[in-house]
Amino acid sequence: MTSVVSPLAPASFPDMPQIGGVRFATVAAGLRYQGRDDVMLAVLDPGTTLAGTFTRSATRSAAVLDCQEKIGRDADGGGAAILVNSGNANAFTGRAGHEAVAGITGAAAGVLGLSPARIFTSSTGVIGEPLPRERITARLADLRAGLDAGGIAAAARAIMTTDTFPKGATRTVTLGGGEVRIAGIAKGSGMIAPDMATMLVYVFTDAKIGRAELQALVSDVTGRTFNCITVDSDTSTSDTLLVAATGASGVDVSGDAGFAAALEEVMLDLALQVVRDGEGASKLIEVQVEGAADDVDARRVALSIANSPLVKTAVAGEDANWGRVVMAVGKSGAAADRDRLGIRFGSLWVARDGARVPDYSEDAASAYMKGQELVIGVDLGLGQGRARVWTCDLTHGYIDINADYRS
Amino acid sequence: MTSVVSPLAPASFPDMPQIGGVRFATVAAGLRYQGRDDVMLAVLDPGTTLAGTFTRSATRSAAVLDCQEKIGRDADGGGAAILVNSGNANAFTGRAGHEAVAGITGAAAGVLGLSPARIFTSSTGVIGEPLPRERITARLADLRAGLDAGGIAAAARAIMTTDTFPKGATRTVTLGGGEVRIAGIAKGSGMIAPDMATMLVYVFTDAKIGRAELQALVSDVTGRTFNCITVDSDTSTSDTLLVAATGASGVDVSGDAGFAAALEEVMLDLALQVVRDGEGASKLIEVQVEGAADDVDARRVALSIANSPLVKTAVAGEDANWGRVVMAVGKSGAAADRDRLGIRFGSLWVARDGARVPDYSEDAASAYMKGQELVIGVDLGLGQGRARVWTCDLTHGYIDINADYRS
Repeated sequence: MTSVVSPLAPASFPDMPQIGGVRFATVAAGLRYQGRDDVMLAVLDPGTTLAGTFTRSATRSAAVLDCQEKIGRDADGGGAAILVNSGNANAFTGRAGHEAVAGITGAAAGVLGLSPARIFTSSTGVIGEPLPRERITARLADLRAGLDAGGIAAAARAIMTTDTFPKGATRTVTLGGGEVRIAGIAKGSGMIAPDMATMLVYVFTDAKIGRAELQALVSDVTGRTFNCITVDSDTSTSDTLLVAATGASGVDVSGDAGFAAALEEVMLDLALQVVRDGEGASKLIEVQVEGAADDVDARRVALSIANSPLVKTAVAGEDANWGRVVMAVGKSGAAADRDRLGIRFGSLWVARDGARVPDYSEDAASAYMKGQELVIGVDLGLGQGRARVWTCDLTHGYIDINADYRS
Repeated sequence: MTSVVSPLAPASFPDMPQIGGVRFATVAAGLRYQGRDDVMLAVLDPGTTLAGTFTRSATRSAAVLDCQEKIGRDADGGGAAILVNSGNANAFTGRAGHEAVAGITGAAAGVLGLSPARIFTSSTGVIGEPLPRERITARLADLRAGLDAGGIAAAARAIMTTDTFPKGATRTVTLGGGEVRIAGIAKGSGMIAPDMATMLVYVFTDAKIGRAELQALVSDVTGRTFNCITVDSDTSTSDTLLVAATGASGVDVSGDAGFAAALEEVMLDLALQVVRDGEGASKLIEVQVEGAADDVDARRVALSIANSPLVKTAVAGEDANWGRVVMAVGKSGAAADRDRLGIRFGSLWVARDGARVPDYSEDAASAYMKGQELVIGVDLGLGQGRARVWTCDLTHGYIDINADYRS
């Protein structure tokens, strides 16, 4: 595992506002890592609305299954809590995995005075090893004692695994009814692929909104944010996104487009931070596809490019190898007409109508590829379908990190 | 580009028999490489039957489109020829690409005294650069003069690009009617993924068989051989497999299962040599899936494992990281029941019924991973579906080769 911070990391963790109705605590339970916190607790005041999206993996973890079962229920008027550990995913641990979740949520409910149905857990780390749950339950009283409205930055650090920096994003919006704050944290670096809510993401807001509306909004925004990023096309067993609206601001945001936009900004910011921390990443790549037969085809082409090892290694080598982009379009399965295809790097068109542009300049293309944030654009020339997907390059760093993650 | 031979290469190029009715020649046309042959010609005597399978890429090359258009036609009684260049794929070259193919096939037809409809070409190498076809047509007379029934080994070398060794396979079978020989060559190392006939493969036999039956046989066998290998999940624009049956042995193999089996052995041998030369490969991995709902699901699971960067880097690191196999099963989209899933490395079961086996030995699993040829087995426990897929590990060598292939 590398300890070097990704070159694509933001300059610093953002200055996060406190969100009324939420308090955080972290402890070092010694699950796997030494000398750092590896468990975080967020306690949500009564009246908080929760929504979530989860991995669609057929081998999803016990904690994910438990969250999914609970998330659709209306609150019982009491509070809720989110309890997360890093270092062990408690995935593919059979009946022992379910027992661990039941044991932890039951103990947390007792310590916090909540219903077990309102305790949401996540576990992230190695797959297949039994979770030593007693190391977590032994620290619940310490966690309760340490609860602090200003603890979100420590929480972001406690949930990291191969991440090289903690991920946070925040927006404050003034709506008709007053000011509303949104603050979110995320972890994720490898085993990142779309088709789900990616990795662990927790977003808190003091807005007031009903459960069904919040869930619909979160599902919709996930499709344009976390489901549009890929680091390595590998889908985690544990991906979880939870959004908690405490209502502490007193501002009702039902049907408010300004709130929806701010939530999307926070979620996209966090999603891009996950890509910026893609294992071994040295460049951030935005793939823009237009002119597809429809949006589904556009997304298929964008993901085919974003997941192509040959495209990603070319970017790592700062090689304007647009032939590999052609290849990735061709293999995507989407409708494509070779003779209408156009490809650009940033605003520099390298191919149009199925062939290299007459005034193609290898020097100009190569100069563009030296940048740290790149756009690969494809115009299929067929219809109105569009998609945007974000990924990173594939470097020696990815091999270094993943050829000995467990050992 | 590396010049080191893959550690998985066969000890030597096989001793190939001459196939009656086929002669080979190669020349150095200087298309891209210096100091080596880069064009090969195979001339097939009158009466030869041809069958082929081709990439399904939507951006396939001009040569592939030309071959596809010609392959379904019955022979006109005259001979045929296969002309292949390496170093330039003539793919995504627009109208100029089609003109290059027409120019080359027309010139070859004139020099060889054949119909242009019986000249099959392939081009492999860089995508998007115009093919300097005159360098090839200028050497056609030299190629004709150099035709030699014993030239297949040189032909195997002339079609290489990032390959680290030439690939050949042969079988001789004694059937009811007499002895029949099969000899094939292939190239391929990166941009290798199933869903087509992969890369360039040419198989020659002196068996006698009708066009329609040969095509049906080739399509069927391709599904169990070349369509079951993947190096990097990237699908080439140029993949071509051609099988030529000259009939020179006089042995009619129609409906003969012995011939079909021998052809499958040759094609599987060549397919595995492509994987053995996978860019940067240090280990050969066979993924065996059983117990799937059906064969389609089994293949989906097998490819999900074989294409997972996390599984492939774990193998490179000799890490028995079966949790990543669980992940790959989960993301495949196939029907899977976490609690029935079993996983083994070779014959060593590491998980059964959705959890680690009680007597799991990390030492035993790690010792197995040190081998050069590994089996990852998955039992889904649901039905009778089975699949086998072959791949290689993902190493620093892949990054080295592909971060500067063009430069």
